[in-house]
Amino acid sequence: MITLYGQDDSGNCYKPRLLLAKLGIPFRHVETRTGPGGATRTDGFIAKNPNGRVPLLELEDGRRIAESNALLLYFAEGTRFLPQDRYERALAYQWMFFEQYSHEPYVAVLRALMVYPERAKDATPEKLAATLAGGEKALGVMEEQLKRTPFFAGSAMSVADIALYAYTHEAPRGGFDLAPYPAIVAWLRRVEADPGHVPLTWLPA
Amino acid sequence: MITLYGQDDSGNCYKPRLLLAKLGIPFRHVETRTGPGGATRTDGFIAKNPNGRVPLLELEDGRRIAESNALLLYFAEGTRFLPQDRYERALAYQWMFFEQYSHEPYVAVLRALMVYPERAKDATPEKLAATLAGGEKALGVMEEQLKRTPFFAGSAMSVADIALYAYTHEAPRGGFDLAPYPAIVAWLRRVEADPGHVPLTWLPA
Repeated sequence: MITLYGQDDSGNCYKPRLLLAKLGIPFRHVETRTGPGGATRTDGFIAKNPNGRVPLLELEDGRRIAESNALLLYFAEGTRFLPQDRYERALAYQWMFFEQYSHEPYVAVLRALMVYPERAKDATPEKLAATLAGGEKALGVMEEQLKRTPFFAGSAMSVADIALYAYTHEAPRGGFDLAPYPAIVAWLRRVEADPGHVPLTWLPA
Repeated sequence: MITLYGQDDSGNCYKPRLLLAKLGIPFRHVETRTGPGGATRTDGFIAKNPNGRVPLLELEDGRRIAESNALLLYFAEGTRFLPQDRYERALAYQWMFFEQYSHEPYVAVLRALMVYPERAKDATPEKLAATLAGGEKALGVMEEQLKRTPFFAGSAMSVADIALYAYTHEAPRGGFDLAPYPAIVAWLRRVEADPGHVPLTWLPA
């Protein structure tokens, strides 16, 4: 069986868990905490992933793959979650890189400062304001797209939606108000209505 | 003919230019400056890309694709630059997301502060030190991989190498010393020896 190293309340780790649940692929979860004193900082884990991050996938033969969105693409190939149309597939790629560069460093980081207050002690008011502004910008870009198409790559749900759902549905916990983004709120409900949905805290039995 | 909106000295914009040159695909370059007062901040450009970033690809029918690494994947499909092996393809994805999350925000950002000094006025010593440290960590992770395989996804060059070459070969301009990373230096020379290489400043005639 494949093994997924991850933290139970991390949005990045939730992404592959959600896709694996939808695809019905069994896996073993190994709780691996991030942050100061976490397991990701140990020599044993660094030997598995030199970048010291989760999620990390370990195949049955011991080979490993890192990066949440790379895992989404790896498992999505050949399924309905990777668009068959070349242009729509490019849009899925586009929104996944948008998620990691323009969304996660703001929306996920602000949530982390609220959920793990011990990480907030070095956060200056200027840093908090810049993080909030970056997140609002990302949400605005998403809202524009979702006014035009029901999902990010077009008419059907894809890995881009899973990537962006992970932290967007948690944005209120980071202090973001989603009321000004009705297209995003409607999209969150569409993602949750897609067959096989499981919540962020779901773990395999 | 396709159109690529980009800035002539941007590493992110260089990525698709380098791949298009290697593949012999003709394109029109539209110089589009970033930063304060740049073209990417204008309403006309925001209408094309709500995230206000380059590179941006415009197809002949007017459809658009953003994000440098999404463009690499879009053009690489069916070519030697996207590994045929499923695991190696996943590694290519992994290193491209690593590049945008763990490398570019440090290596490219420090270079930008040196190349465009007007952007450095708000950079505190703490910010500069943290950016340098993040870049050194990314280079260390790359060095570990390149001690084991000649290219990031394995034995052959892929889009992951193009993504990481773009700003790594410019890292010395940002103040990074590559001497402690001999595997990276040897890899830079391998990438440059791959057929059809063009420098960062290359633009189509």
